[in-house]
Amino acid sequence: MDPSRLEQQLAFIKELDRLKLVQRKSFVSGTRRLETSAEHSWHVAMMAWLLLEHAAPRELDADRVLKMLLLHDVVEIDAGDTLLYAEADAQRAQRERELAAADRLFGLLPEDQGPILRALWDEFEARETPEAKFAAAIDRLQPLLLNFMGEGAAWRRHAVTVQDVYEKNRHIAEGSPELWAAAEQLIELAVSRGYLKHEF
Amino acid sequence: MDPSRLEQQLAFIKELDRLKLVQRKSFVSGTRRLETSAEHSWHVAMMAWLLLEHAAPRELDADRVLKMLLLHDVVEIDAGDTLLYAEADAQRAQRERELAAADRLFGLLPEDQGPILRALWDEFEARETPEAKFAAAIDRLQPLLLNFMGEGAAWRRHAVTVQDVYEKNRHIAEGSPELWAAAEQLIELAVSRGYLKHEF
Repeated sequence: MDPSRLEQQLAFIKELDRLKLVQRKSFVSGTRRLETSAEHSWHVAMMAWLLLEHAAPRELDADRVLKMLLLHDVVEIDAGDTLLYAEADAQRAQRERELAAADRLFGLLPEDQGPILRALWDEFEARETPEAKFAAAIDRLQPLLLNFMGEGAAWRRHAVTVQDVYEKNRHIAEGSPELWAAAEQLIELAVSRGYLKHEF
Repeated sequence: MDPSRLEQQLAFIKELDRLKLVQRKSFVSGTRRLETSAEHSWHVAMMAWLLLEHAAPRELDADRVLKMLLLHDVVEIDAGDTLLYAEADAQRAQRERELAAADRLFGLLPEDQGPILRALWDEFEARETPEAKFAAAIDRLQPLLLNFMGEGAAWRRHAVTVQDVYEKNRHIAEGSPELWAAAEQLIELAVSRGYLKHEF
């Protein structure tokens, strides 16, 4: 007998539990405990909700932004997390693993529901729609904020320079010039306080 | 000078980081690591999205359900988590702490935004609207699922009996008779496998 819709949904929901075991590269502020991808996903969803008024263009489909951010890291359940500043080879290998993970994970859901999530994940990854650009901006602003709060400990650990941070975060401007201006201020403040360096 | 809107929003967003330090009573499945409230909040938001079709009545404001679940535990940043099965005195003291936390935390936001979050939190707590009832159902189904996946370790640790579980979870039916039927099956399976007992 085919599993019922609810059984299929619960199978996916059980898998989601494992995103709590994927560790990111940022510390929870005030600690040396690495943030998990599930925690990050919650934090960015809250941020997108609260900061939506700073999006450009202002009229976004808020529901799509929120859902994109809730699910954007789900593929890490199979694929793990890779440092944003990793080499191109590592990034490509990660991309392969994430595509396979998307096939497997979204494939657990009922056949009318899996493709909705897959389309949202693809949209986020392509970063072409205003919703995806804003979601991507939030996804970058969050670790920037955390690393600043942690006085740069995570940047130092991975020898991330000011130039790296500018290069990888500049696209925040595509989702929100206002948030990019705030991010630039934060980066400059991080430099002036010695949290971030021009070279190691 | 008054802080800008964005500064107020970022102050709140920084506080949110601390929900990653609040430990719940459930284990992440396959581990002896307690789930954090931030992880739980993400998990229930995903569940509400995926399971919305099982809500009664079917036509809910999905956006409100999602946002209610994203923020429902934010007050634990100041108030901590209390066992669902705690004594009435402990529950009352927790309620006092949560109200004070709501005043402080939502008060950090711009004056047109804080009350929106506060109203959603109050709505969740009152459990009177269909949206709040469904959100509450999901909030209960999630630890039930986790504790089942963990073969009852969290129930045993806190000497939670079958009767306790029925009493505290029965209101799932108000949000979704279908999900309550599934929950009842899960509870009965937990009993038959010895994960849950009638007494300790």
